[in-house]
Amino acid sequence: MTSKIIMGAIGIGRIGKIHIENILRFFPDVELRTICDIQIKPLSSWAKSLGIINTTSDPSKIFRDPDIQAVLIFSSTDTHSEFIIQAANAKKHIFCEKPIGNNLKRIRESLEAVKQNGVKLMLGFNRRFDHNFRRIKSVVTAGQIGIPHIIKITSRDPAPPPLEFLKRSGGLFFDMTIHDWDMARYLADDEVEEVYAIGSALINPSIADFDIDTAVAVLKFKQGTMAIIDNSRQAKYGYDQRVEVFGSEGAIMVDNDAPNTARIFTSNSIESDKIHHFFLERYMQSYKDEMIEFLECLRENKNPSVTGYDGIQAVLIAEAAKKSLVEHRPVAISEIDSK
Amino acid sequence: MTSKIIMGAIGIGRIGKIHIENILRFFPDVELRTICDIQIKPLSSWAKSLGIINTTSDPSKIFRDPDIQAVLIFSSTDTHSEFIIQAANAKKHIFCEKPIGNNLKRIRESLEAVKQNGVKLMLGFNRRFDHNFRRIKSVVTAGQIGIPHIIKITSRDPAPPPLEFLKRSGGLFFDMTIHDWDMARYLADDEVEEVYAIGSALINPSIADFDIDTAVAVLKFKQGTMAIIDNSRQAKYGYDQRVEVFGSEGAIMVDNDAPNTARIFTSNSIESDKIHHFFLERYMQSYKDEMIEFLECLRENKNPSVTGYDGIQAVLIAEAAKKSLVEHRPVAISEIDSK
Amino acid sequence: MTSKIIMGAIGIGRIGKIHIENILRFFPDVELRTICDIQIKPLSSWAKSLGIINTTSDPSKIFRDPDIQAVLIFSSTDTHSEFIIQAANAKKHIFCEKPIGNNLKRIRESLEAVKQNGVKLMLGFNRRFDHNFRRIKSVVTAGQIGIPHIIKITSRDPAPPPLEFLKRSGGLFFDMTIHDWDMARYLADDEVEEVYAIGSALINPSIADFDIDTAVAVLKFKQGTMAIIDNSRQAKYGYDQRVEVFGSEGAIMVDNDAPNTARIFTSNSIESDKIHHFFLERYMQSYKDEMIEFLECLRENKNPSVTGYDGIQAVLIAEAAKKSLVEHRPVAISEIDSK
Amino acid sequence: MTSKIIMGAIGIGRIGKIHIENILRFFPDVELRTICDIQIKPLSSWAKSLGIINTTSDPSKIFRDPDIQAVLIFSSTDTHSEFIIQAANAKKHIFCEKPIGNNLKRIRESLEAVKQNGVKLMLGFNRRFDHNFRRIKSVVTAGQIGIPHIIKITSRDPAPPPLEFLKRSGGLFFDMTIHDWDMARYLADDEVEEVYAIGSALINPSIADFDIDTAVAVLKFKQGTMAIIDNSRQAKYGYDQRVEVFGSEGAIMVDNDAPNTARIFTSNSIESDKIHHFFLERYMQSYKDEMIEFLECLRENKNPSVTGYDGIQAVLIAEAAKKSLVEHRPVAISEIDSK
Repeated sequence: MTSKIIMGAIGIGRIGKIHIENILRFFPDVELRTICDIQIKPLSSWAKSLGIINTTSDPSKIFRDPDIQAVLIFSSTDTHSEFIIQAANAKKHIFCEKPIGNNLKRIRESLEAVKQNGVKLMLGFNRRFDHNFRRIKSVVTAGQIGIPHIIKITSRDPAPPPLEFLKRSGGLFFDMTIHDWDMARYLADDEVEEVYAIGSALINPSIADFDIDTAVAVLKFKQGTMAIIDNSRQAKYGYDQRVEVFGSEGAIMVDNDAPNTARIFTSNSIESDKIHHFFLERYMQSYKDEMIEFLECLRENKNPSVTGYDGIQAVLIAEAAKKSLVEHRPVAISEIDSK
Repeated sequence: MTSKIIMGAIGIGRIGKIHIENILRFFPDVELRTICDIQIKPLSSWAKSLGIINTTSDPSKIFRDPDIQAVLIFSSTDTHSEFIIQAANAKKHIFCEKPIGNNLKRIRESLEAVKQNGVKLMLGFNRRFDHNFRRIKSVVTAGQIGIPHIIKITSRDPAPPPLEFLKRSGGLFFDMTIHDWDMARYLADDEVEEVYAIGSALINPSIADFDIDTAVAVLKFKQGTMAIIDNSRQAKYGYDQRVEVFGSEGAIMVDNDAPNTARIFTSNSIESDKIHHFFLERYMQSYKDEMIEFLECLRENKNPSVTGYDGIQAVLIAEAAKKSLVEHRPVAISEIDSK
Repeated sequence: MTSKIIMGAIGIGRIGKIHIENILRFFPDVELRTICDIQIKPLSSWAKSLGIINTTSDPSKIFRDPDIQAVLIFSSTDTHSEFIIQAANAKKHIFCEKPIGNNLKRIRESLEAVKQNGVKLMLGFNRRFDHNFRRIKSVVTAGQIGIPHIIKITSRDPAPPPLEFLKRSGGLFFDMTIHDWDMARYLADDEVEEVYAIGSALINPSIADFDIDTAVAVLKFKQGTMAIIDNSRQAKYGYDQRVEVFGSEGAIMVDNDAPNTARIFTSNSIESDKIHHFFLERYMQSYKDEMIEFLECLRENKNPSVTGYDGIQAVLIAEAAKKSLVEHRPVAISEIDSK
Repeated sequence: MTSKIIMGAIGIGRIGKIHIENILRFFPDVELRTICDIQIKPLSSWAKSLGIINTTSDPSKIFRDPDIQAVLIFSSTDTHSEFIIQAANAKKHIFCEKPIGNNLKRIRESLEAVKQNGVKLMLGFNRRFDHNFRRIKSVVTAGQIGIPHIIKITSRDPAPPPLEFLKRSGGLFFDMTIHDWDMARYLADDEVEEVYAIGSALINPSIADFDIDTAVAVLKFKQGTMAIIDNSRQAKYGYDQRVEVFGSEGAIMVDNDAPNTARIFTSNSIESDKIHHFFLERYMQSYKDEMIEFLECLRENKNPSVTGYDGIQAVLIAEAAKKSLVEHRPVAISEIDSK
């Protein structure tokens, strides 16, 4: 057996814990040397139960540890660029949760640092690793449905996050649609030329002061593919995640996963159980699978399939969508990118 | 346009009316010359509204009409053999509703009359013409699932007929399973060697005095295929009609038809509408399609695909199933057929 | 039995024939007195086989016949307004195929004639009578999914019509999306405020000279509902007709109808048969059901549920969509309606 | 945190490894002290990679270790009774893989030992913990479908095991249908009165010398429920695991799980991916979930829901089915149980 890959992790929230538990359970060839969080105290018993020895609230303990080969960044979006730069300058490979950042200039600087230091950077667009969407990608890539003409993405959360979160999140196009911008690019295998977006606060009028909770966006890709994304912060029936690609030779559609296949036939109706309610249930496997790829890239010196470039493109589209919403017109990505 | 085919019909109950309305609507090349029913009076306004001129309670009016080329027998089962014999002796082609009769000796005589007079006889096993079951047959025949190993037929009525009907019907194996015996033979493309049947009156204990209302039967075919049939007089959720054939290379399964494709997603469940409740909704198209074949056989001098032989085989299996139920053991068809 | 309703029909193309055959088969209380087509000769044997006696190429024979109570207009779109005006002035009730016309001024004049003469006018938006979409409407109306937030309509033809037809059709937004504009209004139960549409000729570049063959449109309704429509002239897998309404309390989705329910399981995959290929197979029942309503309106002096107002609204939205496509910006219906 | 439960495991084959890896990953409150296999050498690197320190080929090391509270028996069927007796006499709780044994007299002795020593015994009928079948059970128990009338179980393996395995397995009714006998009892919530079974070697004629590879069995339960089981050693399309319960008020049906929800629409057909091929993919979660219950029983001093009684009942039914096959007649369980 080869030697273990030694890692440190920064930002131990909900997603951070998922990744860390996955690594400890399923990746015996990784040593998670140190974990860091600004509020590390409350995490100590959790860390101990998993056998994690080094815990700190000082990220530099990770960057300065010469044994650590890779840094996992799970902290809040506003810290991503800074941590990427520090990790890159410390010559450590990086796995960073999406979105890559919230400031285009700073994001570009972080990608420059990655480039200058020759380290690997993988973005955590986990949905690319989902069994359903991956199947779409494989069918599209194999040409089974011809050239993509229309991509349709439905992405609806079961319930809105607290207002306080929403006020700091950067807005629906940044904290929620960010996955869908990436999914559209991934499936079209092309770059977005223009965005048109409409939206309102249909669920909670209090949101209207600073954001929307229901949105529809239309994308035009350079090669002609069109994409439609619809979002809602509140689908009472569960976490609705569907994608469809229509092409010159056919179409592929994925429906939601179900908790079981039971159908109950009574004198009233035919009933099935609700779809999954929570993104963790829905996407659990994808978190594991993206980490498998990251490790493979480190072991075999391959480039990650989800790059910093993908990270910045999603942010550019989100900016264009926001501008479209405000200015009530289609907005070209080039209007944003040139800044 | 060729000349019209002239027909007479005997027995104008529920099924008779369906067939006659279909003919008048969709078969402009048929002239329905005369209809006959033992209680013809109450039918006069219905007949008039359809433009049927000759109505009678005397079937010999049909048999003696030299212009009539074909007789449609929709009367009660106990009259089938008699009418087949008379029609055959009058050199008229015959379409007869299932079952072919309820007395093996008499059935054999009627088939002999058909043979002697060289007329065509088609049995009304309409399910062979159903879009779902026909699709199974085509896949099995094309060899797509290899050699059939296990055939599964579920056939459940939404609600039991009145007790009075049940007392005269000949029993579940004759009035209900008769379709399934035929379907099993049709899909296996082979003859049944042996039957084992169990059953009880689980829905209505009053039935226990003379019949069962829930049954399971297992068939062994000569070439090795096994078939399972399950019946109930009362499926609260509707008219349940499913078939599955499992073979050496795969399987084909058909589910129930639905009144629409809607799925309603709420915070409780995912709901669809109930399946069809009534056999007429479910099998309407098949009644038309079997008549298309009968006409084709007359026009093009072809032999019907559902013959008197098929009719008698279904009755033999029903007799064997009844004997199995009574004697609590597997019964070979040869025990019945030799009588 | 009440006396028959006497009708005349103008324009005996594909749709006209469907309606006429339905009436003759299923509506014994209608007398189809006279049919008219500019090319009536080739229709004579078809008419004779159905027992239609009066055939003419002169529509005034219908308008001047005092016995005729209702006129069915199945002729080409450019003639609709003229025939509506003549029928209305002759005090005849009117069933008119969609779209109501292709010239806004003329359409308004025809509706004025209808109003002045106090006759009934029903528009042939048959999809409102489809079993799937009707089920959606009933669920939405019953409040089962709350207030509609997002409506999604997919409407794709299996193959484009001939180029010659397309050049005269008025364009995709008028000959094809016209159904979808109406469906969106019908399900939202509200009026459209604004349209944004994009589209290209992705299937056949020759179309690019005068029209598009693939389109995406986004509608904003006055009460806040958003709708997304996507169209293609060529879905290789069949006639794709799906609708979904997402609301504050849930969602309802309808999938395509299937020719049968068979699933074939082999060592390669699970296969089902293609969806219907042709709009007549898919919507046959709806043509009958809309005519049932029209007759009911005549018999019981009720107002049709699909009115001239609905007809003109669909045309207004189509005009706005066309303008949006050309001017590359969202277009308010008020910009068109004020003309 | 409470103290860990200390366990030993005997028989480290395919299933044993699954259970052990689950325990080490997901049950931090268990200490797996010692593992034992008659061929322990080849397992050493696997054990080391998991951090298991004590490995042995001598089961007495486990029975004699006073710290070990529970023994997990994953060894071959013929050893189960012996190990149950030894574990029970050593006052250790027991989790034993199905079937409970292959010799009725010996099984009874082992259950007596369990009883005398007051230890807990849980049988590994993992399918009871499967998400689909568990959902059926909950619906049946809640009375949503009324009194069960007909239970249908389809259980087909993707490919037969090697002939050598089959010769030693005890036969299809013991190594494969054993799950289905238990499932039928579990869902009927009643005891089997009588079995009728037919079967042949349809897949591999070489099997005919000592066993069958395709079977149909019919069960009669004491309260009147009927059950149908069909088995095949070779379903070319994958691992087919379906169950349906039909009752006086409705029905519940579960279909196979799918690897993804994608449907591919082309000009040929609609295609989905094959169902899971392997029982481990299909039932992975159930292996974890049954262990959760076993631990709960130990922690909270509860009785396992799957008992030694369940284990012996499944064997009795298998014996009756075998006798039915040989003697070609229905066989009462009482004929076997009285021995």
